[in-house]
Amino acid sequence: MKFSPILSELINSLKCLPGVGQKTAQRMAFQMLERNREGALALSDALRNAMEHVKHCSQCRTFTESELCDICASPIRQQAGVLCVVESPQDVMAVEQTSEFKGLYFVLMGHLSPIDGIGPAEIGLDSLAQMLDSNPVEEVILATNPTVEGEATAHYIAQMCRSREIKASRIAHGVPVGGELEYLDGSTLTHAFSGRRVL
Amino acid sequence: MKFSPILSELINSLKCLPGVGQKTAQRMAFQMLERNREGALALSDALRNAMEHVKHCSQCRTFTESELCDICASPIRQQAGVLCVVESPQDVMAVEQTSEFKGLYFVLMGHLSPIDGIGPAEIGLDSLAQMLDSNPVEEVILATNPTVEGEATAHYIAQMCRSREIKASRIAHGVPVGGELEYLDGSTLTHAFSGRRVL
Repeated sequence: MKFSPILSELINSLKCLPGVGQKTAQRMAFQMLERNREGALALSDALRNAMEHVKHCSQCRTFTESELCDICASPIRQQAGVLCVVESPQDVMAVEQTSEFKGLYFVLMGHLSPIDGIGPAEIGLDSLAQMLDSNPVEEVILATNPTVEGEATAHYIAQMCRSREIKASRIAHGVPVGGELEYLDGSTLTHAFSGRRVL
Repeated sequence: MKFSPILSELINSLKCLPGVGQKTAQRMAFQMLERNREGALALSDALRNAMEHVKHCSQCRTFTESELCDICASPIRQQAGVLCVVESPQDVMAVEQTSEFKGLYFVLMGHLSPIDGIGPAEIGLDSLAQMLDSNPVEEVILATNPTVEGEATAHYIAQMCRSREIKASRIAHGVPVGGELEYLDGSTLTHAFSGRRVL
């Protein structure tokens, strides 16, 4: 026996969500049908609205429904002369939460990964080149993830900056605040020692 | 800084799904925007369709978009003379997967829980009484969960059956197949001993 057609359709569609399999999809479907039909209808509208209207910011490539995202549109940000390169829109949020950085962003929406066919064009480095040429950027902060691909991407972009005589810097790798040396991997500890600062 | 309005709306709406918090909702939203817009649109349609059309079967109370669910509408099932009482539509699926039971179901959509204000009317026992009176039922199998509330509900329904002179039985509690005695709780083990069968 199977669920009724409309119910099966709902359960199958829910499986398109990351981390949701058959059992979780069933639980979600029944929970919404039993307890939260209004929430489910609101979710239906929000999904359609977002999929139809949210696109990439024409300058920094983050997700937004406007032509330019709020950060790119801000005159204060434009005058800061600093550009932070990150891998994803979530990374923008993470940096924004610190309230420390006041410049513009560029979101790669991924990282260089030749093995998966992701080259400079796929992560929008032509747009980045355009942005570097048209904006008064003094420093590019490379905040890609400290993975092999993230490091490779950072080095590639650093070269782009060097050819334009723009300063490129990489965020520091080291011991996380609140972490314990004992449990840290050797590679991070090596970074922490080589990046030591005089007190 | 916050996400753009449409994106915030989507992330908030996703939080209505059970087990989904802020971080998971963000991950879902970005994943769908980046990789699976078609899937998200299909999910939007499936949600609206299900919330608008799926209701309860007029006889057994499970979820269906028809007046009667497939099982209730089947003449073979109606003639079996056996009725299985379960707590949720998922339980129907679990029993159906064994392909052992060939009768009708009645879905309580919960269990008796006076402390939460859930009495006999809330779990549809009036519909069950009607079903027992109008159908040629010879045996009612009580397959509610082996919890305090499930047991109480089973006993209440057993009394309803007794007053109608219909045989009521409870599914066996005991050692799960493939389980190990060593790790079983005392209560289950007691049930397993008292429910022992002659070989």
